[in-house]
Amino acid sequence: MTVVESRLTATERSFHVEAYEKIEYTLDYVDGVFDPANPQLADAFSAWGRCLAVVDRNVLAMRGEELRAYFEHHGIDLRVQEVRIAEVHKSLRTVEQLVDAFADFGLIRKEPVLVVGGGLTTDVAGFACAAYKRSTDYVRIPTTLIGLIDASVSIKVGANHGHLKNRLGAYHASKQVLLDFSFLGTLPTDQLRNGIAEIIKIATVGDADLFGRLEKYAEELLEHSFGFGPEGGHVREAGGAITYDAIKRMLELEVPNLHELDLDRVIAFGHTWSPTLELAPERPLFHGHAIAVDMAYSATLAARCGYITEADRDRVHSLFTRLGLSVDSPYLTPELIEQATASILQTRDGRLRAALPRPIGTCHFDSDLHVSDLVDALADHRALCSGLERGGVGLDAFTPAEVEAPVQRTS
Amino acid sequence: MTVVESRLTATERSFHVEAYEKIEYTLDYVDGVFDPANPQLADAFSAWGRCLAVVDRNVLAMRGEELRAYFEHHGIDLRVQEVRIAEVHKSLRTVEQLVDAFADFGLIRKEPVLVVGGGLTTDVAGFACAAYKRSTDYVRIPTTLIGLIDASVSIKVGANHGHLKNRLGAYHASKQVLLDFSFLGTLPTDQLRNGIAEIIKIATVGDADLFGRLEKYAEELLEHSFGFGPEGGHVREAGGAITYDAIKRMLELEVPNLHELDLDRVIAFGHTWSPTLELAPERPLFHGHAIAVDMAYSATLAARCGYITEADRDRVHSLFTRLGLSVDSPYLTPELIEQATASILQTRDGRLRAALPRPIGTCHFDSDLHVSDLVDALADHRALCSGLERGGVGLDAFTPAEVEAPVQRTS
Repeated sequence: MTVVESRLTATERSFHVEAYEKIEYTLDYVDGVFDPANPQLADAFSAWGRCLAVVDRNVLAMRGEELRAYFEHHGIDLRVQEVRIAEVHKSLRTVEQLVDAFADFGLIRKEPVLVVGGGLTTDVAGFACAAYKRSTDYVRIPTTLIGLIDASVSIKVGANHGHLKNRLGAYHASKQVLLDFSFLGTLPTDQLRNGIAEIIKIATVGDADLFGRLEKYAEELLEHSFGFGPEGGHVREAGGAITYDAIKRMLELEVPNLHELDLDRVIAFGHTWSPTLELAPERPLFHGHAIAVDMAYSATLAARCGYITEADRDRVHSLFTRLGLSVDSPYLTPELIEQATASILQTRDGRLRAALPRPIGTCHFDSDLHVSDLVDALADHRALCSGLERGGVGLDAFTPAEVEAPVQRTS
Repeated sequence: MTVVESRLTATERSFHVEAYEKIEYTLDYVDGVFDPANPQLADAFSAWGRCLAVVDRNVLAMRGEELRAYFEHHGIDLRVQEVRIAEVHKSLRTVEQLVDAFADFGLIRKEPVLVVGGGLTTDVAGFACAAYKRSTDYVRIPTTLIGLIDASVSIKVGANHGHLKNRLGAYHASKQVLLDFSFLGTLPTDQLRNGIAEIIKIATVGDADLFGRLEKYAEELLEHSFGFGPEGGHVREAGGAITYDAIKRMLELEVPNLHELDLDRVIAFGHTWSPTLELAPERPLFHGHAIAVDMAYSATLAARCGYITEADRDRVHSLFTRLGLSVDSPYLTPELIEQATASILQTRDGRLRAALPRPIGTCHFDSDLHVSDLVDALADHRALCSGLERGGVGLDAFTPAEVEAPVQRTS
């Protein structure tokens, strides 16, 4: 980030400051990010001769040896700070523990931290980087689908505060994102679903062609991990094009509005009621299920408003159910709708600005819906869902119970 | 803040983002900020019909009635969140308590918070605003000299983490600062000294004429509260010009470098060893005393290096002692110099970059001093100080013991 221009106007009774800060970041595709032959990761740290890496525990268990061997091969000292992140650990406590690790490492101004993990890890570690000494650089290696196509595409980082999702945070871009889709080969199905839900989001309100390709390949993408599973070679090309287009479309939508000054945000589709829904159960919902419920309900709303046909509404619902994603939840009650609406109004300057497809592939922002309309639509939606092949919410919509300590130092 | 321009470059294997964020803020002089006849404060909140004000406890005790009457007069609902801030409370715990207050108030996106208090209050409340929902607007009313001429001129906000001063924070400008110097009329002498020390800083390395005027008026400014004391009318004009010029010079120096990408910072004079020194005693030093010790020692260093004459060195020392500011401290030991140097090297990209006068009114950045030079200079400095009329540190250099709860809600 660089201030490229500034102007100070001083009068007898007033000073006025105008300055511009440059925000610059890169997302680079990498094949085999921990393959010693790949120079891209080493390039980010070789000038420092060392690297402090914040790494998700699961990734460390599976890829830790490779990661260590990589840095050893390149003659770069590595210290690993292991993080165990679940939604409940996306807290200020975890931020503080990371900050302690930064201080203990003696991080030098402009020396980047490496952050390896899913969206929860990069969100909370990114916030620690944003706050540490007011701004610390970092490089991200997303290891989940949601990280690859959503969290690392955004410059938003943050932590929950109590039951308030992402209530604290910053806009703080990582200097570089290294995109290695081969991580998908070992990703649990629940995590793949989380990511596909975000791709469906972009498609439904931003790219009709992408929506069509998702309909064509949905089950295969999930079953074969976008082509990185043992027998998935035949869908890798289609999967690669789908993820590339999802990233590109999200960047096109977000880059002109990085700080969300325009509160009409296409990519907020599925994120109007879900922030409250996701944290409502004792064991939070998976993010993918929470936003799928919101999007399915929004599709019902959009059809009621005449923005999409009933056939298109059913196409949206069907895409979720085909993938085992929720379209309804016992936690989505009239009371929750009311509470979530009140909460999102605060975030959106007093207006609902519900992103809805009109038609599929384009977005309309609706601020005219009243709570009574929303509650009526919910009754409709529940009736519709009860007739679907897979309605309601299964236990796998909930994140696993979490009993372990959130952060542990290793090596 | 607005992104004014952005560019997305997409290739087959890479995405590159470049965007510019506009930072814009105003400092406005106000006579009698809580005088019902003054529209400037009401103007910032009338669109919302309400105001959440974070107010320092001491200010509230003295000016609370006026503040409430002001908002009542203008028909704006006021909720006051009282804060008791001492250096020990400039912590993440206080940030969290403020965030709870924001959530409880139901702060709407783009609705500004009012922050009234000294530099510690505006630093920690400003950080709470920076983090709350990733960015919340705020309006500042600084009530101390250091707040008026330093903290509110900067966009830096933050909190301490353990014994690490300002280890967490953000660059987050308040939209507007309302400068009402009449607060100085009731400011304790210790607080006036804190602020004068920052003005001496700007003068010594940035404005020789200002330095000369400080030498002329030092005792009178302190005694008569820059002209706002009961019998101080005759120094108000000189005091007003001195504070205006200090603000203007600081803005000139800082505005091109708001995010501190250039680590050679003139206004870091007095802030090389003092961050460690200030928090070394159990009861932290007053900021003014801590930086005065650093500046006095730096002047000794500058004279040893031949950057200033011994006569000019003595002028710097004398300005501090005339004002009852420390020039030496039993806590400034060779061990502390070594520890503080190691700490500041991390902040300055591995180089010392000690800001030193060369000559008075201009700044030189020195990275060639070794710890052994610094320790030798300390011996010199102590010998010099023992010969000064007021050397060493008195008990009043320490902040008061703090036993009360940091944050309490009122009304």
